Amino acid sequence: MLKVPDHQVAGHQGLDGKLGPLVDDSGRFFKPLQGGKRGTDEVAFYTSFSSDTNIPDHIKRFFPIFYGTQLIEASDGSGMQPHLILQDLSFGRSNPSVMDIKIGSRTWSPQAPEDYIQKCLKKDRESSSVELGFRLSGLQIFESKESGFWKPEKRSMTQSLSADEIRSILKKFVSTNKSGVLGSVPDCAFASIVYGGSGGILSQLLELKAWFEEQTTYHFYACSILMTCEKELALNGKNPRADIRLVDFAHVFEGKGVIDHNFLGGLCSLIKFVSEILSEDCVTEPKYSKSGLVGSNDSLVANCNASPVL
Amino acid sequence: MLKVPDHQVAGHQGLDGKLGPLVDDSGRFFKPLQGGKRGTDEVAFYTSFSSDTNIPDHIKRFFPIFYGTQLIEASDGSGMQPHLILQDLSFGRSNPSVMDIKIGSRTWSPQAPEDYIQKCLKKDRESSSVELGFRLSGLQIFESKESGFWKPEKRSMTQSLSADEIRSILKKFVSTNKSGVLGSVPDCAFASIVYGGSGGILSQLLELKAWFEEQTTYHFYACSILMTCEKELALNGKNPRADIRLVDFAHVFEGKGVIDHNFLGGLCSLIKFVSEILSEDCVTEPKYSKSGLVGSNDSLVANCNASPVL
Repeated sequence: MLKVPDHQVAGHQGLDGKLGPLVDDSGRFFKPLQGGKRGTDEVAFYTSFSSDTNIPDHIKRFFPIFYGTQLIEASDGSGMQPHLILQDLSFGRSNPSVMDIKIGSRTWSPQAPEDYIQKCLKKDRESSSVELGFRLSGLQIFESKESGFWKPEKRSMTQSLSADEIRSILKKFVSTNKSGVLGSVPDCAFASIVYGGSGGILSQLLELKAWFEEQTTYHFYACSILMTCEKELALNGKNPRADIRLVDFAHVFEGKGVIDHNFLGGLCSLIKFVSEILSEDCVTEPKYSKSGLVGSNDSLVANCNASPVL
Repeated sequence: MLKVPDHQVAGHQGLDGKLGPLVDDSGRFFKPLQGGKRGTDEVAFYTSFSSDTNIPDHIKRFFPIFYGTQLIEASDGSGMQPHLILQDLSFGRSNPSVMDIKIGSRTWSPQAPEDYIQKCLKKDRESSSVELGFRLSGLQIFESKESGFWKPEKRSMTQSLSADEIRSILKKFVSTNKSGVLGSVPDCAFASIVYGGSGGILSQLLELKAWFEEQTTYHFYACSILMTCEKELALNGKNPRADIRLVDFAHVFEGKGVIDHNFLGGLCSLIKFVSEILSEDCVTEPKYSKSGLVGSNDSLVANCNASPVL
């Protein structure tokens, strides 16, 4: 039985008779093919990428698993429509906090049609993309069983956040106090176990960065990093299952021997934000006793006596 | 006695009654202040940067020394005009090969006036900036005492080179055979001693990259890396004095806590081109006996049995 996903934070949603993705109960995510070239381009990317033997496994894990395409009943009642069958990244997760971060100061490829370039350029300039090298496309941050998620509804506002506002949201993502309360200072209680550590988000972002410094096959425009963690697990002293995934490949182009400097620049900017939170976190007293999950020898855990993480 | 510089490859030249920079015989370079805000902004940058104690010495050395400003007789005969007094980067060099590489896929700051943004954007799209993350603003490559320099005159052509053409010019920069001859395959004889080694250009670019991953004080738009070496020294088995310098700071803006992802992305793209030449160079037999200047333990020298340099 297919249903609308519970934890979608960006993109078209399949509610109220609209076209959007669906999930099954076995971990598969059905994404309707976008119209025209975008849909076929995304299928072409997944097909090529999933069979590309030059991509190391530690990089492939950052991409949703691709199971092919299938005609299924679309969420808008328009009948059988082609869908990409992908891994459902929220499957098996309990109340995941999720951020969808569109990477790159430029979301258009030089090969795109002129009217599309102008549309993207306008949005890149109005949002934080040009200033920060990325923009927040959507988010939900878990607060508690009682109050549920903090999920800002006005997407246009999240996309044009200032550096300070982004910093604050990245802190809320790893804090125990309520995200939506005005004036509440995030305690960053989970910064070390979500962002830090050898399996933490900073470490994953740095692995991705190393690949982007080398790979010249793909240029990813308007592609997002989906950052996920489960705060409830952290509250219970367990591994919060923090991870990153790349999603949305309707605008991937051949790299033709040149690195994707646009994605890499934005990624490095995001890395700087995350690593600063880790360094700041260490200068105040820990507000939450760290679980044994994060070893003291771990080079990515912020260390008060050392220089900043990066 | 002031004169027009011998080895200028980009920017306005002070010839034929035009306004341009001048040099003296003691290593000083006099750059006329550009009109309006650009001139005062460049003075402001040099003043601020040269007294900024947060910049480590190993980074400061990548910038020309700043000696202040002075009213001197301008090259166009317009009388006494304000000039920046800078280090003459060609002083004491013999027949230097020089490349002026404008870094960044975007040469405009979001704060710039709209008409200026549109002008820059057009040039960024028409040149290689958007595709490669940088463009070649000018170059001269020394061939021999007899034939002198190869110096392509049509600047508009060098600025819109393809990836393959840039690769070819970066190879010519470190080759013994004639650069301007059609069909001549660059031998890359000096790749290891110019680009490789602990003091080579790749190593310097990587030092600069590490700083750009961290620094959030300055955003450099339309700024160039000037790459210089002396092939004659290499031919005589001496250190070719390969180095990089940043020049042109009329469009530097406050970073406000965000890294310069635009410059960093372009820099990483250039680094990839240079490191590929070093890896390629090693797979063929050395065409020129390497001098003792490059130690075999040096991690940045391409090693045939190792994975690519970066």
